[in-house]
Amino acid sequence: MSGPTDVSGETRLYGIVGDPIAQVRSPAAFNAHFAKLGLDAVFLPFHVRADGLAAAMEGFRSLRNLDGLVITVPHKFAFAELADELGDGARLVGAINALRRTADDRWIGELFDGIGFVEGLRAGGYEPAGKSFLIIGAGGAGSAIGSALLPARASRVTIADAVPERAEVLCRKLAAAGPEVAVEAVGPNPDPDGYDVVANATPLGMCEDDPLPIDPDRLSARALVADAIMKPAVTRLLREAEKRGCRVQPGQYMLDNQFPQIVKFLGLPGGAA
Amino acid sequence: MSGPTDVSGETRLYGIVGDPIAQVRSPAAFNAHFAKLGLDAVFLPFHVRADGLAAAMEGFRSLRNLDGLVITVPHKFAFAELADELGDGARLVGAINALRRTADDRWIGELFDGIGFVEGLRAGGYEPAGKSFLIIGAGGAGSAIGSALLPARASRVTIADAVPERAEVLCRKLAAAGPEVAVEAVGPNPDPDGYDVVANATPLGMCEDDPLPIDPDRLSARALVADAIMKPAVTRLLREAEKRGCRVQPGQYMLDNQFPQIVKFLGLPGGAA
Repeated sequence: MSGPTDVSGETRLYGIVGDPIAQVRSPAAFNAHFAKLGLDAVFLPFHVRADGLAAAMEGFRSLRNLDGLVITVPHKFAFAELADELGDGARLVGAINALRRTADDRWIGELFDGIGFVEGLRAGGYEPAGKSFLIIGAGGAGSAIGSALLPARASRVTIADAVPERAEVLCRKLAAAGPEVAVEAVGPNPDPDGYDVVANATPLGMCEDDPLPIDPDRLSARALVADAIMKPAVTRLLREAEKRGCRVQPGQYMLDNQFPQIVKFLGLPGGAA
Repeated sequence: MSGPTDVSGETRLYGIVGDPIAQVRSPAAFNAHFAKLGLDAVFLPFHVRADGLAAAMEGFRSLRNLDGLVITVPHKFAFAELADELGDGARLVGAINALRRTADDRWIGELFDGIGFVEGLRAGGYEPAGKSFLIIGAGGAGSAIGSALLPARASRVTIADAVPERAEVLCRKLAAAGPEVAVEAVGPNPDPDGYDVVANATPLGMCEDDPLPIDPDRLSARALVADAIMKPAVTRLLREAEKRGCRVQPGQYMLDNQFPQIVKFLGLPGGAA
């Protein structure tokens, strides 16, 4: 493999759909993977606006040499409506971030954000089975993390949201999908005391002067504190947690540890075992 | 530029649409051009079947980072219907082989097959102005060549077709578009005697045992004989013409000499002057 000149009529296509698109890193990651394995495939950026999603999906269906897609912000929820079938995690959250064409020409969507979170913990040597989790934020990220904690066999999952009804709705879904895990909804300003893992799944922390989603003085030093925020790479919450002796997991782990899972889902070699 | 890993979120997209697609050479040609000029762009194969063309075109419209397309067999006629506007040659033939997005988000189609034929002659040092042409075949290739001979100021264009009405229809279009060029329709088995250029635009010659489109014994040694067929690279017609001392132009010239014209049409640097 020695250049984009390697793209021929036989090259298989994959891509990521988002708006904006210039900042995405999936093309670099996937194309490096293809090059390493000598696969005749290329991974592309597809810049699609919200008003073009339905047309884009019909267009993708018509491209016989396009085998799979990654979906990123702000289209993860809309694409769940455009898929022919959803995996378990995608169905619970109502969002997807990967789509693949099946042998019988249907498109199956799945959401790997929560799996990436769980695999991130494992990659750092932290086994989530039997642990108690406080998830702050019942939106897309919180829902994804919560849903992945069911197959990961967490002992207890508490969902906190500034809008208590949102936390309750998510808890009902989680309880229905994984009755063996204890779930509980709480309102704003949750107390992190006593949880093994505290995860921020709100946007609080994207700006340096955002309020913290929890009071860090209530963290015990044995807690692991994770953040779903990727920019900044290390949020103020994580810095405060580190000061108090906690292990931390930055948001990038959630993304990086999805990669082998999505590679596998897309039917490509070199993915997760 | 050192690999498909160079494709990032900022890379602009171009592609070729056809069915089948594995054999196309445009990705190699365009990607080499992009690499040479250091353009952050990639040229892709898009395999679309006839029943998916309308969806594909709507999908292409939705991809905000896709700037242009090449259209190949069997979709050149169907895509003329899907473009928002046609160039002169495309309108006459009712077919396109290139499409570009304008600044105001419309898609303009043009056909470069005939221009490629004319530029092929010029590239070989043969100026078509003032010359007489016999074109055998009034289909897509013959129509394209005929339409390009008008701006090239041929003195006379004769169109032959096994179905005389097809030749007559094309002649009427050519006469309306370029009244300063003498056009004439003839039926099957045209006599090549007296023409400066004889061009086969029928499929006769794709198979080695096809009948010849003309009697080569009626060729004068000063004639130039061209073929629109690309496989085989040199048809039996061209071999027979060479035996009789004629200059020949294989079909590949028509394709190769379109490239700088299409590069220019797509608004890319390094195209035709």
